[in-house]
Amino acid sequence: MTEQHVSQHSVNITDKFWSHYIETVRTEMIPYQWKVLNDQADITIEKERNDETIPSEKSHAIENFKIAAGLEEGNHYGWVFQDSDVYKWLEAVAYSLQYKYDEKLKELADSVIDLLERAQEKDGYLNTYFSIEEPERRFKMLAESHELYCAGHYIEAAIAYYKATNNEKALRIACRLAYCIDNHFGYEEGKIKGYDGHEEIEIALAKLYEVTGEENYLQLSQFFLYERGQDTTFFAKQKEEDNSERPVIEGMSKFPLSYYQAHKPILEQDTAEGHAVRLVYMCTAMADLAHLSNDDEMLTACRRLWNNIVEKRMYITGGIGSTVNGEAFTADYDLPNDTMYCETCASVGLIFFAYNMLKNEANGRYADTLERALYNSVISGMALDGKHFFYVNPLEVKPEYSEKDPGKSHVKVTRPEWFGCACCPPNLARLLTSLNKYIYTIHDDVIYTNLYITNNTTFEINQNPIKIDQKTNYPWDGMNIFTIDTIKETEFGLALRIPYWSKTSNIYVNGQKWEGNLENGYVILHRSWKNGDEVTVELDMTIQKWTANPKVRSNQHKVAIQRGPIIYCAEEVDNGKDLHLLRIPKDSNFDYHFAPEVLGGVGVIKVNGLRKAYSSDWDHQLYRIDEQETFESDLITLVPYFCWANRTPGEMLVWLSK
Amino acid sequence: MTEQHVSQHSVNITDKFWSHYIETVRTEMIPYQWKVLNDQADITIEKERNDETIPSEKSHAIENFKIAAGLEEGNHYGWVFQDSDVYKWLEAVAYSLQYKYDEKLKELADSVIDLLERAQEKDGYLNTYFSIEEPERRFKMLAESHELYCAGHYIEAAIAYYKATNNEKALRIACRLAYCIDNHFGYEEGKIKGYDGHEEIEIALAKLYEVTGEENYLQLSQFFLYERGQDTTFFAKQKEEDNSERPVIEGMSKFPLSYYQAHKPILEQDTAEGHAVRLVYMCTAMADLAHLSNDDEMLTACRRLWNNIVEKRMYITGGIGSTVNGEAFTADYDLPNDTMYCETCASVGLIFFAYNMLKNEANGRYADTLERALYNSVISGMALDGKHFFYVNPLEVKPEYSEKDPGKSHVKVTRPEWFGCACCPPNLARLLTSLNKYIYTIHDDVIYTNLYITNNTTFEINQNPIKIDQKTNYPWDGMNIFTIDTIKETEFGLALRIPYWSKTSNIYVNGQKWEGNLENGYVILHRSWKNGDEVTVELDMTIQKWTANPKVRSNQHKVAIQRGPIIYCAEEVDNGKDLHLLRIPKDSNFDYHFAPEVLGGVGVIKVNGLRKAYSSDWDHQLYRIDEQETFESDLITLVPYFCWANRTPGEMLVWLSK
Repeated sequence: MTEQHVSQHSVNITDKFWSHYIETVRTEMIPYQWKVLNDQADITIEKERNDETIPSEKSHAIENFKIAAGLEEGNHYGWVFQDSDVYKWLEAVAYSLQYKYDEKLKELADSVIDLLERAQEKDGYLNTYFSIEEPERRFKMLAESHELYCAGHYIEAAIAYYKATNNEKALRIACRLAYCIDNHFGYEEGKIKGYDGHEEIEIALAKLYEVTGEENYLQLSQFFLYERGQDTTFFAKQKEEDNSERPVIEGMSKFPLSYYQAHKPILEQDTAEGHAVRLVYMCTAMADLAHLSNDDEMLTACRRLWNNIVEKRMYITGGIGSTVNGEAFTADYDLPNDTMYCETCASVGLIFFAYNMLKNEANGRYADTLERALYNSVISGMALDGKHFFYVNPLEVKPEYSEKDPGKSHVKVTRPEWFGCACCPPNLARLLTSLNKYIYTIHDDVIYTNLYITNNTTFEINQNPIKIDQKTNYPWDGMNIFTIDTIKETEFGLALRIPYWSKTSNIYVNGQKWEGNLENGYVILHRSWKNGDEVTVELDMTIQKWTANPKVRSNQHKVAIQRGPIIYCAEEVDNGKDLHLLRIPKDSNFDYHFAPEVLGGVGVIKVNGLRKAYSSDWDHQLYRIDEQETFESDLITLVPYFCWANRTPGEMLVWLSK
Repeated sequence: MTEQHVSQHSVNITDKFWSHYIETVRTEMIPYQWKVLNDQADITIEKERNDETIPSEKSHAIENFKIAAGLEEGNHYGWVFQDSDVYKWLEAVAYSLQYKYDEKLKELADSVIDLLERAQEKDGYLNTYFSIEEPERRFKMLAESHELYCAGHYIEAAIAYYKATNNEKALRIACRLAYCIDNHFGYEEGKIKGYDGHEEIEIALAKLYEVTGEENYLQLSQFFLYERGQDTTFFAKQKEEDNSERPVIEGMSKFPLSYYQAHKPILEQDTAEGHAVRLVYMCTAMADLAHLSNDDEMLTACRRLWNNIVEKRMYITGGIGSTVNGEAFTADYDLPNDTMYCETCASVGLIFFAYNMLKNEANGRYADTLERALYNSVISGMALDGKHFFYVNPLEVKPEYSEKDPGKSHVKVTRPEWFGCACCPPNLARLLTSLNKYIYTIHDDVIYTNLYITNNTTFEINQNPIKIDQKTNYPWDGMNIFTIDTIKETEFGLALRIPYWSKTSNIYVNGQKWEGNLENGYVILHRSWKNGDEVTVELDMTIQKWTANPKVRSNQHKVAIQRGPIIYCAEEVDNGKDLHLLRIPKDSNFDYHFAPEVLGGVGVIKVNGLRKAYSSDWDHQLYRIDEQETFESDLITLVPYFCWANRTPGEMLVWLSK
């Protein structure tokens, strides 16, 4: 095969399943979030966020910028990282405009850019909290200040917005901000040899390098990553030198260095530790840097952390973070289903990490996990109405325990409207509106299909445009059809991911069965393609019972039900109380049907299961001598995990007894 | 049968099992605690007590009294309730002197009484923290101050010491203190219509009434109980009126009223809520009051709370308190085995409650629970050396999770030497040294045997002394022999408790089988007794597999192994890691032998069990499609739960998979 050059145009998603989400983000979430950012929404902000004091009951985020810009008088209000809510909104707007142009929305976003320009200080610094309240503390409390975290979010938003609308002002602000950071941080004498408590700037600077070609940004990103955890006294020294009595974030000083992944140099970190979102953001940047600068050591470190997460510390839903304390990882195989955190943002971050690993190597395992998180833990974060959100995505819920056991009080039974700390909703918005970029990756002359989503896109192969049209009713059907539209016959590889859950699969090219081996999770169709060629992939949608590694204590004697990429769960509204009494026996039959009337249209599973008998003689007994257990037959109804808690609130269970 | 009057002399325990504990308390714990109270012990005080800031690394308790007495200069040091450590020590000394007289120990205790007399203020007030530091805040922050709690502990200690040594000064101090409290609290105009955040004074005042016959004390105890939860703004109002910025106990303000059982009047409380120790102390007082004043409503309330605990909120070990947050009860059937609290003190308090219920009604269920807590959760609190103590008595431990999961960090893997907050060790000491009082209770002309412990005692039945000699090798053997020693033949009832776990039992009187029905858990031998009569009770010591109420989620598919009153557990030192992989199959054979060389001599159980196979192909996989499970046979070794963590630290598990 001759050497080919392959590049990719933008992907248009026309998928039924995902269009619903993207449209909901566009028509509901973005306008709604704008109202929230402007304190115009009539909402109840969720006040109880464990461990941390919520400083605000309103957002005040736009108001903060107006004050910083000198347009209004007043104090900063809200979290120290409140600015990032605006940036994530802006990023989602950018992607949304690419999906469907909207002049009024663009004008609104342009006006936000104008406001940010005015709020930016002369030297490029941009942060409303420190500009308004404590300019003298700039970059001096980096463990808690989130200054570079916010800067990173702005830069990411600016790049997206520039790409979507060609607004150069947005990019200019970003470059000035990056320049300001570059002026203050680095190995050179007089610069700060340190890093932010929350990774994010590293991701943004790598992207800024890609857009501008400016090597400085790449080097600065490398600096932040490689410096992390080198001097383990950095945060402590900053705190010691800080003269203010005012905590930047109340209660944060209790966290250990591993919370910030600052306990040792990143190349030496072989387990995923600390705050889960921070860890995956760090890994996302590491994987991008490994890719951009061919850094093999970095890639090895990425693989090590990836393996630790995916092989030992991840929930079957793609959720991560086993404890609410520090919203953090704990230990290998410690995966409690009812006290975990599984923050929506952490699963979003896991997708970023997976995608950047896919840039490094074409290996289906990354896409498998990307898909796992996307179809389960991530979209579980959002209600069907697009206006209510979960931070915490549990695998086992009993409302009474959430109410009465403080160790489970962070596990909400219904999605609240908004959060005082509002990271998850806008993070979801920016992921969903940019979903098109995750579908394909290119290595050499092979186009790798990572996700099965109805879309069309054009690749350029040696200047020859090849249109690929993908049609599917995924995740409900396993049949996916690709049609090639090309003027001239062209050689290239089309790689089709065979997901880990598809035990058998069939591929047909123009009706002819294709016999090919799996190579790292893909079947690669290397051939010369001509116009009208049609590829069909049939994945195995058999409903499967999954089991966890025996070392996972909490999943002993349990199975999770999965069909295609979708993890199912039992809800009280369908199955009554005490879901843990349900049993999926060895010989149970699963019946699947797509129910257009249920939860906006989802595939529903019915199982001829059992229910452990509960007789009233137990009412006054807590313990008794073990007897033969008795069971009653019970038709168990399972619905996709991602849409739990959209009906009458009640119990929910993913891991069912067998 | 003619009407008889039965009274009881003191009981002498000569039991092998318990003498070890009582002797350890006498010879190790009491001298050791004395050193601690005087800061002479070379110990590491356990600093990490969740939720609360430990103000002290030394005890300083005796020093506080010297300062309050004006004998030394300085500040109060330690918890606001530090005084109670001295009182509980004194109470244990009193019981210990009754068990074995020790002139030097008595002199030491006398000198403590002298010191306390000097520390007591003119009006009877006695509390070193408030006397030294904040006299103006006396009785003004009762939610947190523990003033009446400490007073109660002194009064209890004084009564015990007076009974043991006839030291009238001890009792006089107590009466002056009670008088002071009576002067400040009550329904009358000008008095405080409120109560302490931590129940205890109520127990003490009822006892003081019994010793002195002074009705005022009984009424004051009633006042505190009945006033509790009436005005739910009481604590808040006190806090509002408090002018000091200084918190009495840091962080306590976060707890809800139910933490203090102050959320509603006690007669309306139908579930056990809040801090477990407080709740059972409240119940202990309620049960005593119900008994002393024939208060039927109170007794009904006691039964309701008893039932809620024992039928829905108690661990099989007799542990209570399902969460570390507030060391508290949570919800019915919420009994997690690895995150619970199960404080030693709470189980001690449950024994107090059970005993006071036994005074109200002869019902074996109270004694069953008393025995359950005593032989399991309570003595688990103490190492075999008598110098190391557990606060938290878990049912499932994995050292790695205790270390890395903050939600389990309160679960210690080894017993620490001492605690900054030192309630448990002295509470254990006072319970163990007064164990003799729990063996028998009397109702009408029936002597009820609650515990099987080798002892001898004398009852007076219509002025006729009847000596009863009980011999047993309990808890290892089920055979118990009672010998009657009387000058003249006397009619009375001897009631023998048939524990809930003894499915068959045989009673012989002078070799003749006695056929009698169970009446509320006892077989009552009503007869005319003559000298030399011998009663034998054979209890069924078959090893049993116990199961939990199906509503207990965390014990699904699990059994606990019990022999007699002893709950067994598996330890890593005997069975290797990953104890959750062990299985007790349906047809497993149990082999029991008493092993004098193991853990100071305990009964050891061997089970022909299984271990779920773990193959290395799992090493890089967290989830896979469920297959037939494979097992290897494994000889499982179980040891009594109470002596876990006395060998090499490691995993421990009570509830084993079946």
